[in-house]
Parts: sequence; C-alpha cells; structure tokens
Amino acid sequence: MTVALVGAGPGDPGLITVRGLELLRRCHVLVYDRLVAEELVAEAPADAIKIARDELRQEEVNLLLVSYGAEGYRVVRLKGGDPFVFGRGGEEALALAEAAVPFVLVPGVSSVSAVPAAAGIPVTHRGLSGSVTAVAAHDPERLDFAALARVGGTLLFFMGLARLGELADGLMSNGLDPATPAAVIASGTSDAQASVTATLEELPAAAAGLEPPALVVVGETVALAAELRPSRPAAPGSAPAVRSPRNSR
Amino acid sequence: MTVALVGAGPGDPGLITVRGLELLRRCHVLVYDRLVAEELVAEAPADAIKIARDELRQEEVNLLLVSYGAEGYRVVRLKGGDPFVFGRGGEEALALAEAAVPFVLVPGVSSVSAVPAAAGIPVTHRGLSGSVTAVAAHDPERLDFAALARVGGTLLFFMGLARLGELADGLMSNGLDPATPAAVIASGTSDAQASVTATLEELPAAAAGLEPPALVVVGETVALAAELRPSRPAAPGSAPAVRSPRNSR
Repeated sequence: MTVALVGAGPGDPGLITVRGLELLRRCHVLVYDRLVAEELVAEAPADAIKIARDELRQEEVNLLLVSYGAEGYRVVRLKGGDPFVFGRGGEEALALAEAAVPFVLVPGVSSVSAVPAAAGIPVTHRGLSGSVTAVAAHDPERLDFAALARVGGTLLFFMGLARLGELADGLMSNGLDPATPAAVIASGTSDAQASVTATLEELPAAAAGLEPPALVVVGETVALAAELRPSRPAAPGSAPAVRSPRNSR
Repeated sequence: MTVALVGAGPGDPGLITVRGLELLRRCHVLVYDRLVAEELVAEAPADAIKIARDELRQEEVNLLLVSYGAEGYRVVRLKGGDPFVFGRGGEEALALAEAAVPFVLVPGVSSVSAVPAAAGIPVTHRGLSGSVTAVAAHDPERLDFAALARVGGTLLFFMGLARLGELADGLMSNGLDPATPAAVIASGTSDAQASVTATLEELPAAAAGLEPPALVVVGETVALAAELRPSRPAAPGSAPAVRSPRNSR
C-alpha cells in the first residue's frame, strides 16, 4: 500500500477509526483538509511531510498523491467525514487508479449519522423514519424538491445554511408540512457545536446567527432531540480520547 | 457516564472508532449484536459481563441497559454499523432517557458509506451523484418507488436481497432506466465479502447465490467500481489492525 484515503470523521478527533489512526501514525506524507482536527494532524510522525490542502485545487491534490505514491511513500490523505460521502474521494481514487498507484480506502464516520446524533437525532427510528436522504444543497435550484418532499423519512442538506430560506420554501411549496420538525447543527461533534430546532417554517429565522459548516435536518425524528440529547456532548474534548488507546495497556 | 451506545462499524473490526474501542476496553458490561466481529467482543476486559443480544427482544435489551446503567456499571452497547442508522439505537436511548440513566452515543462507520466503498463505489461523485438515499427494504410493498426512482443519486437498500426482484421491478416500472448500474454487496468489509455488479435489470439473476447480510446499490456511481475497486480489500484481516494502536508506542 502506498496511498490511503482516510476518513477523519465528523470533527471530534476521537471518532477517527482505529485503522485510520494507525495509518496516520505511520505515514511519511500527510495531506489533510482544513476541517480536520488539529489533534489528528499532530498524530502524524514528527518527521512526516505535512501538507494542508487549503487553497490547493483538486487537480493539484491529485497530483501530490500520485507523485508521492508513485515514489513509494506511505501517503495518508486525511479527509473530513467519509471520503466517499460528499468527500470527492472518488476523484482522488480515480487519479490514483489511472496512474496505477496502489491505494486503500479507509471509511470514516460520516456527518450523515454523527452530526444528527450529536444533537440527539436518530436518522432512522421505527415508526418515524425508515429512510435517510443526504443531498448537497449549496445550489438549491438544482434540487428536485418534489422528489425530496415525497421521499420522506429524514432529509439531510449539506452546505444548505446559506440558502436555508430557499430550501424550506422549496420543500413546503412541494407539499412538505410546514410543521415538520427541523434542525440546523453547526460545527457538529466539535467543541464549537451549536444547534437549533424549530418547525420547517420557522427554521430560517431560528437559525440566524449560526455559521457554517452546518447540516440541515428535516423530518419527524428531529422531535426526539428533546429527549435524546446526550447527557453530555458526544465530543467531550478530544486530545485525551485520541491519546488514551495508546496509554490503555 | 454509565451507558455508551457504540457503533462497531460495518464488519471489519479495524473500523471501530478510537473512542468506541477505548470505552469497550474499560467496560464492566458488554451487550453486543450478532453481527459484531468477535475480535471486538474479545477486546472487553476478561472479567466483564458479556451478553450476546441474539434472541433477546428489544424490550429485554432496553431493560438490561437500564438496569445495569442504573446501578452505575460502565455499560457498552455495541451495535453493528451506526446506532442511529437502521440500528434501533434511538429506542434504547429513549428507554435510558425515560429511566434517567445517563448515556452517551458514540457514532460508528455506517454501512451506508463503508460497504459501497469496500466494493469501489463512492455514494456521491461530482457529475454522477449529488445525493444518497438509504432505505430499509425488507418490505418492498411499503416503499414509494415513484419517489425513489425520481430522487435519483445513489439508492441503497438495506435488507433488500431476499426480495430483490420486486425491488428492481418497482424501480423500473416507475421510470428508472433498466440499464442503471447496480450492485449487491454481501458481508461488506468482512473477510467474507462477496459482490456482483450488473444492470438493474440483470441484477436479480446476477446476485443469485449471495447471502445476507447484503446491501443493494443502484446508481451511476456503481460504474466506477471497475476502476476503483481497492487494490487490496479494505479489510485485510482484522485482529492485527485492532491490536496495533495498543502496541504503537
């Protein structure tokens, strides 16, 4: 193996996988996204080459992975959430495959489940929701609101905060009940997590003041948050959680 | 904290989270599902009480968690995948909340992303799929095939193998192109993983011989599997991966 595309999880560094952390601790080269916790970046060996993705274009990232990988370095590409769920990991994997550079994919905990959970919201629940649909919503006019309103279950909109009014209007004008429970969760699972719940109709006003990254959740299971909000945050501070498996023997 | 609802990940024991493993190694009581890898069960302390869920009814599981939790034991409820994605974790969390037993939720890597990934299939991919819908499909007559066919993106059907013909017919008779790429992945991410890809129309015949648990994937990104199938399985054998963080200092 030379290149590993690794999901870092949703923000809380304790939510990286055991295998992902193991690869991170052995890498020669680390290429990481802006939203990856700094505690995880610090887990790479001191002499590893660490490259923040920041302003690099996707093509430049691909080229880095292919170049270091082709030279036989152990490269970890650490991506927020899961590489294959709104992560553009497929594009990097294709570049590696086309260059015949061996790679592995290590999935991560996706925001799809972890961010609602951190606010006490299951995405499925017997009798309330038998499905979950996650959609990129930076461009609401490209969404098929009629299909989304009809498919039901729990709806998750990534990058939907900036145009939340259009989202809510689109769903309501296609038949979704304005009283449907809804939530916005900002910086989910991190120490900075903030969230609001409201009816779909009132959500845009309720969410004023929240900042991206944020996930919009619409569906009946949001009503469970009042009871299921964890008794302490799912992410109670991170560095100890990452260190403890090391120290656990 | 007394009770932790922990996602074990999709099968491969190296895909548990760092925090989940840490809690597992410190628990007094472990209640685990049938599909949880035995390598993970073996990570609980030797003197921990270990209870296989097996034939227990959901109400009995709830009662166990509430009883041990109320007595102050450190209880880990280890569930396949993610507790809040087709995991009935919400029901257990509600029982704990109603009994005023403190609990935390530790999300897991869901099959939603990890199982397609293990077969080389991203669930989203720029230009091919901007959404993913996951639905429980043990009861196809309860599905709204018209909505599913229209919402597009990547469709994931859990527990859909037994009635795969009905699934495919339902989608095709509601307008989904019979040539849409599709896959069935059985025992995804485990050593026993087996998968087939075919057009939606030909999938039921192609999948004959596969056994549950299995995930059905329908959508254009399935076509990437031919190129993106990892150069070795994502789950190359598990016990070493779980042990290595312990040994990594």
